[in-house]
Amino acid sequence: VVALIITPRVEQARVWRQLLSERLPQMRFRCYPQLGDPAEIDIALSWKAPKGLLGSLPRLKLVYSLGMGLDHLLDDPSLDRRVPIVRLVDPNMVEQMSEYALYSTLYFHRRMDVYERFQREQRWEELPLPHTPMRRVGIMGLGEIGADCARKVAALGFPVRGWSRTRKQIAGVRCYCGDGELDAFLAECDILISVLPLTPATAGIVNSVTLEKLPRGAYFVNIARGGLVVEADLLDALDSGLVDGVMLDVVAEEPLAPDHPLWTHPKVRITPHIAGLTNPYTAVEPVYANLKRFLAGEALQHLVDRGRAY
Amino acid sequence: VVALIITPRVEQARVWRQLLSERLPQMRFRCYPQLGDPAEIDIALSWKAPKGLLGSLPRLKLVYSLGMGLDHLLDDPSLDRRVPIVRLVDPNMVEQMSEYALYSTLYFHRRMDVYERFQREQRWEELPLPHTPMRRVGIMGLGEIGADCARKVAALGFPVRGWSRTRKQIAGVRCYCGDGELDAFLAECDILISVLPLTPATAGIVNSVTLEKLPRGAYFVNIARGGLVVEADLLDALDSGLVDGVMLDVVAEEPLAPDHPLWTHPKVRITPHIAGLTNPYTAVEPVYANLKRFLAGEALQHLVDRGRAY
Repeated sequence: VVALIITPRVEQARVWRQLLSERLPQMRFRCYPQLGDPAEIDIALSWKAPKGLLGSLPRLKLVYSLGMGLDHLLDDPSLDRRVPIVRLVDPNMVEQMSEYALYSTLYFHRRMDVYERFQREQRWEELPLPHTPMRRVGIMGLGEIGADCARKVAALGFPVRGWSRTRKQIAGVRCYCGDGELDAFLAECDILISVLPLTPATAGIVNSVTLEKLPRGAYFVNIARGGLVVEADLLDALDSGLVDGVMLDVVAEEPLAPDHPLWTHPKVRITPHIAGLTNPYTAVEPVYANLKRFLAGEALQHLVDRGRAY
Repeated sequence: VVALIITPRVEQARVWRQLLSERLPQMRFRCYPQLGDPAEIDIALSWKAPKGLLGSLPRLKLVYSLGMGLDHLLDDPSLDRRVPIVRLVDPNMVEQMSEYALYSTLYFHRRMDVYERFQREQRWEELPLPHTPMRRVGIMGLGEIGADCARKVAALGFPVRGWSRTRKQIAGVRCYCGDGELDAFLAECDILISVLPLTPATAGIVNSVTLEKLPRGAYFVNIARGGLVVEADLLDALDSGLVDGVMLDVVAEEPLAPDHPLWTHPKVRITPHIAGLTNPYTAVEPVYANLKRFLAGEALQHLVDRGRAY
């Protein structure tokens, strides 16, 4: 069985190859761009493969996403819809995402945005007392990442609401679902954190209409995908006071262009897509376990439902 | 029974008076500076009383600190050493302190100090992957606040060490104690968070000798008292690279003077003593419970041991 490993930088692919070769000596691993004979490749382990590449592998039986999103695979029309796709579930990455969610929650809750400004102004001034049980945090997306974020934010005493496509139950979290309950959810988010997958149904979901539903002066955090947000609408909401602060780890076009207004907006904090990074040294274990199942002809875990796009 | 309430701003004293009067109609409350007859005052509820004031109350039988520190009382030579002192224990303030400890831990762990600079430079660049199980966090001081900080930081997967004067046991935390174990503790603190009380034994405990014991490039956070730190030594340690970043909620002299080098040092983040603010609306309950015990002649909770100064 031959697997092709595709990553934006070939050094990353080589790390994956080393870790997987040690565990699966019966398989052969190639690192893109060195394909060898495309007709020999059974499996693609892929993160952001060039469009068309996967469609050029005639014997492809499985695609394994090497990052947590699937948008890089599902928007590739060359990929035969019958080829099963498996999602990466890296517990270490889930923890990283929750760290970022906690960090951004505390940043806005404790008004660190204002205290940063006070420091620049050399101003020693106390703001009104923050009260955690009054600060409602909303998590959009309740998969592995969203559920972990929700539980950890709730553990600090914040009232947490969640929203997802299908109904979820998380202890201590008030869960909303579907389009019909989106407005009710948004109305209770003093801090809104997006961890949604990017699908045709969620693209642009954060826009002038939905931002309007938030409590006035809310905060918005995006650690999922830039395409969830209509950035012009978000900038308008910041300037009108509808939204009082934003922390974005992802933007519509990455890297963010040097002259983009998001870089310099005083109410925007930017990080360069680092909320959750795949760590091959921890992520290799679930990949190895799934590839073993594939070799044994057993059912795979974390198979993607193409209809739901996650 | 007459109680005098002393706070830096009289409006705060009036909030306390209202909350306590509702609960203890049998007591009389006065708000400083309106003392009435000093010889009638049995109890002082005090936060930063002017030096000498408490010594001028001849009938004083109890002093209740209205903030979590005691240094403002213990360094007042006018206060008769036989007058019992009670500490405020406000669960809400403990939670606030832990929020700040978590915030500062995540800030340095996730290199938000560097990403802030990257944003100013409009630079989209990923730093090496942070790995939580490798980032050791040390908590100096393991009272109510320190223990809560330690538990909450450990719950995120950070290896946590604690240090205190007397031996403590906290599940999941490696506890050191006393002068003899201080160096061993410091050697394991990639992020050092101080929540120590300010006493003659702890004044200036963070100095060139102790900072030298930290792993090179460690981070330091102070949410306790400015007097714990020799600020000139801390600035030297930052400039030599011994310490790579500092977050200070407290400084030796507050408010921090406008021309102080801490304001503008690129590796220093300053907040104006807001890590834990007493919230009379939640803190009133333990104060009320203790004053009821006082009226009934029962033993008081949270009595201060003057020998240990906390």
